[in-house]
Amino acid sequence: MYITRVSAYIPEKIIDNAHFEKLMDVSEEWLLSRTGIRERRKAASHENTNTMGIRAVAAGLDQLPFDVSEVDLIIGGTYTPYDTIHTLGHAVQNFLNISDIPVLSLSSACSSFANALEVAEGYFASGKARRALVVLADHNTAYSDETDKQGGHLWGDGASALWISQEAHTDQDWKVLDILTGGAGNIGKASESVFLRPAHEGFQMAQGRDVFQNACLYMAQVTQKILAKNGFQVQDLDYFVPHQANLRITRHVAQSLGLEENQALSNIQYLGNTGCAGCSIALWENQSRFQAQDLIAVTVFGGGYSYGSVLIQV
Amino acid sequence: MYITRVSAYIPEKIIDNAHFEKLMDVSEEWLLSRTGIRERRKAASHENTNTMGIRAVAAGLDQLPFDVSEVDLIIGGTYTPYDTIHTLGHAVQNFLNISDIPVLSLSSACSSFANALEVAEGYFASGKARRALVVLADHNTAYSDETDKQGGHLWGDGASALWISQEAHTDQDWKVLDILTGGAGNIGKASESVFLRPAHEGFQMAQGRDVFQNACLYMAQVTQKILAKNGFQVQDLDYFVPHQANLRITRHVAQSLGLEENQALSNIQYLGNTGCAGCSIALWENQSRFQAQDLIAVTVFGGGYSYGSVLIQV
Repeated sequence: MYITRVSAYIPEKIIDNAHFEKLMDVSEEWLLSRTGIRERRKAASHENTNTMGIRAVAAGLDQLPFDVSEVDLIIGGTYTPYDTIHTLGHAVQNFLNISDIPVLSLSSACSSFANALEVAEGYFASGKARRALVVLADHNTAYSDETDKQGGHLWGDGASALWISQEAHTDQDWKVLDILTGGAGNIGKASESVFLRPAHEGFQMAQGRDVFQNACLYMAQVTQKILAKNGFQVQDLDYFVPHQANLRITRHVAQSLGLEENQALSNIQYLGNTGCAGCSIALWENQSRFQAQDLIAVTVFGGGYSYGSVLIQV
Repeated sequence: MYITRVSAYIPEKIIDNAHFEKLMDVSEEWLLSRTGIRERRKAASHENTNTMGIRAVAAGLDQLPFDVSEVDLIIGGTYTPYDTIHTLGHAVQNFLNISDIPVLSLSSACSSFANALEVAEGYFASGKARRALVVLADHNTAYSDETDKQGGHLWGDGASALWISQEAHTDQDWKVLDILTGGAGNIGKASESVFLRPAHEGFQMAQGRDVFQNACLYMAQVTQKILAKNGFQVQDLDYFVPHQANLRITRHVAQSLGLEENQALSNIQYLGNTGCAGCSIALWENQSRFQAQDLIAVTVFGGGYSYGSVLIQV
């Protein structure tokens, strides 16, 4: 299984920390020390999860080494849906106008990157697809309460698209060596730490400490596990691309793995927590930096809880 | 791939047509002639998609021919989520307390039954799971506007659970002969006919006629297609279990396929449209009626649009 292309879309509008300093009566230092976030992007009023996902897909159409009509599976990933019926996946299908292929959208919160790739892997294994389009988009600002001191300042909006093939097209394709996911919905305060209950209490980071502790624990563990399972050690890793939840979590996990700080790729400083799209936006931003044979672990943790790691060889 | 057990949960509270006669100033005859629905169930105020899904799972725990701890994949299906972060799948994982297995929740609207089974099929094919638990739940009344004359009277709440195994456990297991799904998000008025936009316009059946026409067309087509693909004809079919959208759609599809009226199983008359759970609730209700070797097509259509059929041999 190969990643042929990564594309992304980031909204134009920048929300800086000054916005939250006034709103929540806190200082820039307080905000920076908690999360490392300086600014985040906010979708315009005419944008939503589906339109951002489509923009990410549209950005990938040039230089695609196969005809887009050959896409035979579309998987959307989001926990901030615009429409749960004409879902992100269906909106992308509408945009590409490809009929009669499997389409679905899924959520394992911020770890949908790993779960969506694993679902595509399954369709490839069952012989039901050969070229999948995985679209990840989160429109956090549509649901978050920006006056919420616990979490209102965390969230940014963004989308990415991963064009996945069973066979390599060129030697530029990245090989997916392995995918490992685990739900952890039975761990800690998984049912209440972060929630997005659209018809009830809305979107809140209610137990930030429990999220922080479990994210640090599980992200380090699953990275070590997938490396060991594939005969690698942490020293073999060139880059670590974590879910962009919080710069303190990233640094903590990188340190506990024994990585150098510059091996962990981050965009949270200027994009905020862009949900399940964050890590693949980081892949897209850094693609020119990757060298042939580089080993990359993309490791995610979702708020419900769930975790996963995808091991990629460039 | 086998269905080892089907279980379900239906809330107690009954909402009859008299409720909508008053609310919408329409007659019982008008309501019955449009949908065939006499009454529907409504979740209690302490219930939600996750609690209903858990109740459906709990109902299946007795007589399970394997230990529940052997479940190694949980897939939730819903378009009416209680929580998009601690999703239906994660809530079930929490209830069963099974750690470190893949868990996700998905939506292809009312056709999630077929897509969830197809995702499980993929995990089996990739060797990543052997016993999947598929949980389908919709809490339509949490999102619907009961004063909406177009669609307010359609919706009921309910949940079901399907215990799926790669190998048969007993000769009571039903064999899944084939699964065929297709997104149809690029067809007709797919993007606006039925929508559930939690942060925007809510839940509406805006273009009932377009849904009706495409549901009739696609449900008949995909049933014929899956039968032909597996060397069967419509005459070989013992039962037809459609998505419980509307009794007129069911009758129209059954008639266009050339089925007898009693071959099409319906519960919409007393449960309303229970979303993606409806067809598996019908499987659960009718299981004592099925005889060994009976051929059953479960055919679904979702509002975004999407369609699918699952061919089962008892």
